[in-house]
Amino acid sequence: MIKEQLTQQILSKKSYLCVGLDTELNKIPKHLQHNANAVLEFNKTIIDATKDYCVAYKINTAFYEAMGVKGWQIMEETLHHIPTTHFKIADAKRGDIGNTSAQYAKAFFETLPFDAITVAPYMGEDSIRPFLEYENKFTIVLGLTSNKGANDFEMLKTGENYLYEKVISTIANWGNPNNLMFVVGATQANQIASIRNIVPENFLLVPGVGFQGGSLKEVSNAGLNNSVGLLVNASRAIIYASDKENFAEEATEIAKQYQVEMASYL
Amino acid sequence: MIKEQLTQQILSKKSYLCVGLDTELNKIPKHLQHNANAVLEFNKTIIDATKDYCVAYKINTAFYEAMGVKGWQIMEETLHHIPTTHFKIADAKRGDIGNTSAQYAKAFFETLPFDAITVAPYMGEDSIRPFLEYENKFTIVLGLTSNKGANDFEMLKTGENYLYEKVISTIANWGNPNNLMFVVGATQANQIASIRNIVPENFLLVPGVGFQGGSLKEVSNAGLNNSVGLLVNASRAIIYASDKENFAEEATEIAKQYQVEMASYL
Repeated sequence: MIKEQLTQQILSKKSYLCVGLDTELNKIPKHLQHNANAVLEFNKTIIDATKDYCVAYKINTAFYEAMGVKGWQIMEETLHHIPTTHFKIADAKRGDIGNTSAQYAKAFFETLPFDAITVAPYMGEDSIRPFLEYENKFTIVLGLTSNKGANDFEMLKTGENYLYEKVISTIANWGNPNNLMFVVGATQANQIASIRNIVPENFLLVPGVGFQGGSLKEVSNAGLNNSVGLLVNASRAIIYASDKENFAEEATEIAKQYQVEMASYL
Repeated sequence: MIKEQLTQQILSKKSYLCVGLDTELNKIPKHLQHNANAVLEFNKTIIDATKDYCVAYKINTAFYEAMGVKGWQIMEETLHHIPTTHFKIADAKRGDIGNTSAQYAKAFFETLPFDAITVAPYMGEDSIRPFLEYENKFTIVLGLTSNKGANDFEMLKTGENYLYEKVISTIANWGNPNNLMFVVGATQANQIASIRNIVPENFLLVPGVGFQGGSLKEVSNAGLNNSVGLLVNASRAIIYASDKENFAEEATEIAKQYQVEMASYL
């Protein structure tokens, strides 16, 4: 998917919501847990319940790898259930030396048909280039994350700037807004405006709205640009909206609430 | 495996060699490639051919994920072929917010029986803690890597120190030499001595000896400590020592050369 298609989807649905499928067997409704394919069935139901109100799905690989080989099967089958209209993100936070990052790019852009992957910046340019070389795919680099640990290194000063600012401004030159996005945590809404100044054109993927405490209004005010430029992710707030038999209806309801609020900011 | 067991294995074999199983189907000997289980069979043969001269195996997840579900099956079966005497490292370079890193720890320490996993430091303390909480397991944090991209961020100055020094000195306090190691690239042998000063007791995992150009002698002089404290990895130099029918014998020969040289430094 290219940037114009993503923007078009957002404007057509009046939603820049990404639903995060961080699915854990012991957190899905009890009445589903005995099903042999519980996680996959849950994912399919959540996708069907939310697809009209979101434009993207984010699959965090950790939750699937915890299940081993079966988890990779579920990830693959979940991915095939996502409509082609939706932007598919592997939240994998990969990154290694060049020839190895090329294997990760193959894993998520060829073997699995994701549109985008999240990548960690620590190892520098050759760890990121192999992802950027794919046409019509996006590399989403960690900029400023939403967790407490962001203070440990991302917020260190290097010269006049914070490390995360240096990371974003440096990497922005390795790609362009058509193949490069950044992860910016919503718990740091006051910093989104300054990041928007560094990368006025790139999409920002914002996790941390919902259980992590970020405000959708603040994020939107600071982050929206001329081509929307924002994907806001909610995972647990939507997929675990209810642990009862009505979980799908509740997921629809919460996704719709996000969409309605987003429509008011577009 | 605990640190004393690892040191004991090293002293008994007079080797601190780790063999990296970065296996790609199109790089293994042609006569094996038509076998339906070519990568697994190749790995098993390499393990059998090298186990007497090494103390550890490192499986880089990227090469297996590039094969999708089948790759995870091969990774699992390869792991089960490694003798219990050997230290098993998942070179996965994972790291995410706390509850997600906990899933990665489960994936590699419980679902798969690795002894250690490599972890990226960018996201800070809560991204690393879940790995450190496992008993008798090791978290191997990226310090200074062996690639050109190490210059982009790892070598940035933050205050008086380079970022990689700050990363190592900070994270050293979150764990201890019994559960925490660091990745230090061998192409930067002059920096290994200064890292050894920061973490005198921790094991260092050193990739980049071989095709990446590091000198085993320099690395050993700078890195060895009272409990050995070094694991030196070679991947391509050993597993692709020959692309002919004698690949196993050649792998043995190269592994033995490393071991003999290592014995002279112990």
